[in-house]
Amino acid sequence: MRVPPGVRPQDFSTALQQFSKAVGPEWVFSSEADVDQYRDAYTPYWNEPEEPIPSAALAPESVEQIQAVLRIANQFKIPLWTISTGKNLAYGGSAPRLSGSVVLDLKRMNRVLEVNEANAYALVEPGVNYFDLYRYIQERGLKVWIDPPDPGWGSPMGNSLDRGGGRTPMRDHFASVCGMEVVLANGDVVRTGMGALPGARTWQQYKYGFGPYVDGIFTQSNFGIVTKMGVWLMPAPEAYRDGTVMVRKHDDLIPFIEILSNLMNSGIVRGTMLLESPLLNYRASQGGGVLDTPGGPTVAEMERLGAEKGLAYWSAELHYWGPRKIIDTQWEYTQEKFASIPGAKFKDGRSYKFPLTPQQLESAPQIALGIPNLSIFSMLQSTAGHLDFSPIVPMDGQTVFDVLKVFGEAYAELGVAPRNQFFALPWSFFPRSFVLLFGFPIEHNVEQNRRTRQVFEKLAQVAADHGWGEYRTHTAFMDLVSSKYSFNNHAMRRLHETIKDALDPNGILSPGKSGIWPKRMRPTKA
Amino acid sequence: MRVPPGVRPQDFSTALQQFSKAVGPEWVFSSEADVDQYRDAYTPYWNEPEEPIPSAALAPESVEQIQAVLRIANQFKIPLWTISTGKNLAYGGSAPRLSGSVVLDLKRMNRVLEVNEANAYALVEPGVNYFDLYRYIQERGLKVWIDPPDPGWGSPMGNSLDRGGGRTPMRDHFASVCGMEVVLANGDVVRTGMGALPGARTWQQYKYGFGPYVDGIFTQSNFGIVTKMGVWLMPAPEAYRDGTVMVRKHDDLIPFIEILSNLMNSGIVRGTMLLESPLLNYRASQGGGVLDTPGGPTVAEMERLGAEKGLAYWSAELHYWGPRKIIDTQWEYTQEKFASIPGAKFKDGRSYKFPLTPQQLESAPQIALGIPNLSIFSMLQSTAGHLDFSPIVPMDGQTVFDVLKVFGEAYAELGVAPRNQFFALPWSFFPRSFVLLFGFPIEHNVEQNRRTRQVFEKLAQVAADHGWGEYRTHTAFMDLVSSKYSFNNHAMRRLHETIKDALDPNGILSPGKSGIWPKRMRPTKA
Repeated sequence: MRVPPGVRPQDFSTALQQFSKAVGPEWVFSSEADVDQYRDAYTPYWNEPEEPIPSAALAPESVEQIQAVLRIANQFKIPLWTISTGKNLAYGGSAPRLSGSVVLDLKRMNRVLEVNEANAYALVEPGVNYFDLYRYIQERGLKVWIDPPDPGWGSPMGNSLDRGGGRTPMRDHFASVCGMEVVLANGDVVRTGMGALPGARTWQQYKYGFGPYVDGIFTQSNFGIVTKMGVWLMPAPEAYRDGTVMVRKHDDLIPFIEILSNLMNSGIVRGTMLLESPLLNYRASQGGGVLDTPGGPTVAEMERLGAEKGLAYWSAELHYWGPRKIIDTQWEYTQEKFASIPGAKFKDGRSYKFPLTPQQLESAPQIALGIPNLSIFSMLQSTAGHLDFSPIVPMDGQTVFDVLKVFGEAYAELGVAPRNQFFALPWSFFPRSFVLLFGFPIEHNVEQNRRTRQVFEKLAQVAADHGWGEYRTHTAFMDLVSSKYSFNNHAMRRLHETIKDALDPNGILSPGKSGIWPKRMRPTKA
Repeated sequence: MRVPPGVRPQDFSTALQQFSKAVGPEWVFSSEADVDQYRDAYTPYWNEPEEPIPSAALAPESVEQIQAVLRIANQFKIPLWTISTGKNLAYGGSAPRLSGSVVLDLKRMNRVLEVNEANAYALVEPGVNYFDLYRYIQERGLKVWIDPPDPGWGSPMGNSLDRGGGRTPMRDHFASVCGMEVVLANGDVVRTGMGALPGARTWQQYKYGFGPYVDGIFTQSNFGIVTKMGVWLMPAPEAYRDGTVMVRKHDDLIPFIEILSNLMNSGIVRGTMLLESPLLNYRASQGGGVLDTPGGPTVAEMERLGAEKGLAYWSAELHYWGPRKIIDTQWEYTQEKFASIPGAKFKDGRSYKFPLTPQQLESAPQIALGIPNLSIFSMLQSTAGHLDFSPIVPMDGQTVFDVLKVFGEAYAELGVAPRNQFFALPWSFFPRSFVLLFGFPIEHNVEQNRRTRQVFEKLAQVAADHGWGEYRTHTAFMDLVSSKYSFNNHAMRRLHETIKDALDPNGILSPGKSGIWPKRMRPTKA
């Protein structure tokens, strides 16, 4: 039997018996085979002593059962690692930060409590995944869209609480959260926002409620267990179109991003954009890299290659949702603005009026149409998982140059193969800034994983040196990333710890999440 | 000498001397005449024993001076009521919740630290008001707009922290906040979001940072003193237009709001809308009221009157910002959608291409064009102030009917004169819900103010009974409104208090703000 750290085996046995009474014996998992299902297949510590392995898992089906679990966990000081569906791909999956934690798996709490078409929102429980919600809406013919991430197997709850992003105008998932129900470590049930008003009529329509607005402190957090969450949906648009903007020269990126930023901040271009470089991709297909490797080709050489092969240096596919004539006008205006860059070219892309024909559906960019799917997996090497390094950088062209150079030099120094430079160009998952998603292969290979960790640590340091911080990270790197957010002797972490100690004095909720450790475990981590 | 409650006069004298050393003697105000400047001219308790009167005021000019003030306040347990510019009109002005508090006036910290045109944001100190920021931008010819509230004399800091609203697409002011610097009660300086990363490059471009996102807990709050705040701006649009939609019949409001809600949630209609009723306004001009007074005219009678006078039952002016051809298309599409309501009529309104001519500027709806002004004051009776009762209600037509009936009956029961029914129709200051702004006259008249308080208490009760809660309230009613947010035996207030006690154990910051009292004062309030 695996046992949580600091808990006597006998106490843990007693606790497991009590957990069985609380949630039903068939929903307590403590055999090695069962518990292994909760290991993270993509951990960079696979089979190493540092790999965090849970001691058990519990699957309550109600708030009352969670409250019963909390009473027991408080009594025996048992750490609980809460997951919704456990599909936090590339950031830790269903495995805890702290080995020996008991996974609190909320998959059985999977009711779609409400979808309101006229006011475009849903109220969901933790175990509802994007497919569930999509199906619920389709079956009832409701004219609202969800915004799934890549891939769509996770849950609106989990993804929003980890502050993930999608592709449509509702892409900033936490920004679309409206109203929560949270069970605190002491078992107290809090409804946030307007939910604090008994019989509230606008719990899912107005976020802030009265007094300090607390929802944010339950994201990337171990301050409470969220059991209900409102999420704003998008009214189903009449039509969709996309189009590609291409520019020839390296330095065209400066006005390119300036125009793009203005269009986005003005609400004309919405949704997520991925900056692409057909030219750098070509070079990558020839065995080179996307990043500026020292000693690589000069800008002039690359521009000559681009002219020769007819390849744009930079391009972006832009997406438009709405009434046909408005989105046509927006795309027309987009082209006018980018036409100020000499040599800019444009290509009309897909264009749909909804509902799609089955044929259209097949070739459609499903995520951008609010349809959850798993096609992203086909992009990854079949035998490996991946782990993301994902810093936030300013939305300007010079920064992209800096990124390519700085990480190119770091990769060169580390000897990372060019084929592992994927996702090195910025995405706009959030308004007003770019996210990079450097992916690293993860295999069940201790030597390679050790190497990946070294690469990650170096990149995190290089990023921090440039004022670029990560928006989210794998459990394995939470302490590392947290340590970079060190302004004024880690004032933010100390603030987090003060709140943590006040809300969870026994330190039972997800110890180590986001680098926040409960008081009783803190000295050993310092 | 006025003295804070529980502080010995001798200690307070010592503290004032130490405050003088900290901020300079000329910035400590303790004479009655000086301190009276901080009274709230619009308090419903004017000259009554319950009117909260400060004991002194301090105006530090830096974070270091605030830290020095906090050391002294902690030592002597002196309550500090923090204001930015103190113009919180209708919600308490510059006066504290607790009589005897020392006003911490941040007006001297009034630097615009940065305005970034390409990424459309500003970084401001508390004392920067909307006019300051507007002038700063105009003087430099920067192509960004601010979003001032009515009236524009307050500060972006104060208004955003109180979660106020404006008129443009950036109208939800807290939603536009990106990155804060906060001084905690213990003097610790925390930078939130990406500001926690030393040398951060995206403090004003990405809100959430790493780990629990805390910005919300410093709004409508007494958990810290915000000393810097990032605010997202809107890229200056090329053009503006507005247009009015009018429908004839009472029940047309149901599809009217459904279409409006869909257009707003789709990003086609942006900015704040005020629902109007030319027909009810006409009745009001004849001495009737806007609300459904019992025994008043029937719907059929009103519709006949509307037909006779050629007056729409419901109308709304909608506003569009952006490139000329996009906003023209949006207005065209808006009309197509509303045309599904039989008899709907449309009127083109103002139409500008920027910059405005001086003549255009004169008749322009300045607030909607991001130009701060004080013209709202001309709407109010010259000798009186006002106080707002402002509940949030669902965005649907049936709710508007309910609102008119429910508050009409309450007003009738209370005997409120129809002329005091102003602002009884909903605004859309926030996405996805409506706000009502019932205004009450406030005069320096004890009897009338007592009456106004009765009206307020009754309306707050009636609203709560219907699941409608206030988004913000005058200091005089903070305990009352907080008491309505009572789900699960006041779980939200207890959560607020737990955080309050952890962050401010001596209870020195703004006691009573939003109904949150520090531990040492709580028993007397229970």
